[in-house]
Amino acid sequence: MSVPPKAVVLLSGGLDSTITLAIAKLQGFACSALTMQYGQRHAIEIEAARHIAQRSGVVQHIVMPIDLRQFGGSALTSDIEVPKDRPLEAMSAGIPITYVPARNTIFLSFALAWAEVLGACDIFLGVNALDYSGYPDCRPEYIAAFEKLARLATKAGVEGGAFNIHTPLIYLTKAEIIRRGLELGVDLALTTSCYDPTPRGVACGRCDACQLRLKGFAENKISDPAAYA
Amino acid sequence: MSVPPKAVVLLSGGLDSTITLAIAKLQGFACSALTMQYGQRHAIEIEAARHIAQRSGVVQHIVMPIDLRQFGGSALTSDIEVPKDRPLEAMSAGIPITYVPARNTIFLSFALAWAEVLGACDIFLGVNALDYSGYPDCRPEYIAAFEKLARLATKAGVEGGAFNIHTPLIYLTKAEIIRRGLELGVDLALTTSCYDPTPRGVACGRCDACQLRLKGFAENKISDPAAYA
Repeated sequence: MSVPPKAVVLLSGGLDSTITLAIAKLQGFACSALTMQYGQRHAIEIEAARHIAQRSGVVQHIVMPIDLRQFGGSALTSDIEVPKDRPLEAMSAGIPITYVPARNTIFLSFALAWAEVLGACDIFLGVNALDYSGYPDCRPEYIAAFEKLARLATKAGVEGGAFNIHTPLIYLTKAEIIRRGLELGVDLALTTSCYDPTPRGVACGRCDACQLRLKGFAENKISDPAAYA
Repeated sequence: MSVPPKAVVLLSGGLDSTITLAIAKLQGFACSALTMQYGQRHAIEIEAARHIAQRSGVVQHIVMPIDLRQFGGSALTSDIEVPKDRPLEAMSAGIPITYVPARNTIFLSFALAWAEVLGACDIFLGVNALDYSGYPDCRPEYIAAFEKLARLATKAGVEGGAFNIHTPLIYLTKAEIIRRGLELGVDLALTTSCYDPTPRGVACGRCDACQLRLKGFAENKISDPAAYA
């Protein structure tokens, strides 16, 4: 039996990263899951990520605390209010205040560090460029630039290796992502997407993330197993 | 009086980053200093960075703890022994075990995040490509790739801005860096370079960093103000 290749999967505890993990496993990777605890207001997703990692049979799971609240500048990492009830057209009209400066660059740089230590060449990230909130670091050209950087940044790259940043959801709509998750038998009830849950971890149903998620379930004509306030 | 432009300066507490900060100030930047506490064995440099930041008149100083010991893989972040007494030729012959996977990518991604929050377009990093330990993420082509990534990664970049990664020491030898520091009146006694200091913070004098530093002072025919074991 050949040894499966190793991959690092960024796992937030949300719908997209959980389905990305399932895809990485389906592709035969031995997955190490990395969850970034960055001072996000929706820290409930850390617990979701722990449950998902346990249930998914990952090789190992690291929760990495970093304090982006020291920088602030986003509704997710400061006391700026999370926008609610925005029409879908408004969501695609610009980069919202939930944008966390350089978040995916920070996350991918940690994933790259761990991948290099593990001897893994593959990193999975659940970004998508459709039905998203307009974040610049979810675009294919950004991912390509990070792959190029990763080769130049590392000992592995200097020695001729390369890192592949897999973004299997990048061209899917939220409805298509949910359908993929259901096909793969992912327990979507374990996932949490809300930017601003109640203290007990119940989703608001009104932030951009909740609205996009609910729309995706509605388009599949199934109800979202998440609890809403 | 015009408002000085803002810059984020990565400040480790070592010779190179301290002189880089002095250069940034000379160039008229209002400097915010960022020190990454990454689980390095030479944590004494954090205290050095605090003193240097206080004495240098920075606008603000953030010490950002991140736990790269969770990944390991380097003599600086695990129990792997720091090499001692290596001949200089050996230092330039390959990437040593003191290489910390993706370290500068992680550091620059945090600097980028803070710069974007502050509205700064300039980041200073004290890397140099000569008299260094062979680290891939100290090379000019790596820095250029990060600048490109930064434009794609950020809201500021999407809106037409760009980030400049300044590496004023990149083509200098250690002796030239020290000379530049002396010209600028930097108190080099505040800096610490050793990878493996004693518990009381005294430099070993034998690791690559100590040897390169001592050689740089010797070439300037002056004695190093640091204490050695």
